[in-house]
Amino acid sequence: MKATVHVTLKSGVLDPQGKAIGHALSTLGFSGVGEVRQGKVIEISLDETDAAKAEADVKAMCERLLANTVIENYSIRIDG
Amino acid sequence: MKATVHVTLKSGVLDPQGKAIGHALSTLGFSGVGEVRQGKVIEISLDETDAAKAEADVKAMCERLLANTVIENYSIRIDG
Repeated sequence: MKATVHVTLKSGVLDPQGKAIGHALSTLGFSGVGEVRQGKVIEISLDETDAAKAEADVKAMCERLLANTVIENYSIRIDG
Repeated sequence: MKATVHVTLKSGVLDPQGKAIGHALSTLGFSGVGEVRQGKVIEISLDETDAAKAEADVKAMCERLLANTVIENYSIRIDG
């Protein structure tokens, strides 16, 4: 199975990378750009064949390694 | 409107961050983990109200700034 994990900063947490992208877009002449936020996407190939078990495993991975849950949210998608 | 851009390394391009994550997961005792790839997700708030125009704008942003199209693929999702 394949798991896709999105890790994004919680709203209210300062995002300097996003700010830099927003500023660069303005400099390049793109107008009408509001807030820009940057996050991570992590794609994991898993040997596990049971979707529920795979999701539980990936949730544990997020809690222990992939996301800093103090400042980041994560979401998990499992594809067969 | 809100645009979500996924930027991922093309297959075949070495991904040291993904390799490091995969190695760390093994060290933490997670078994059955195959390839791990890390990419970026960029969320952009746009003043534009026309979805087709917004998508064209964001495509231009990807080509000019957000993605290095030599080694990266990007995908765009526009939400109302």
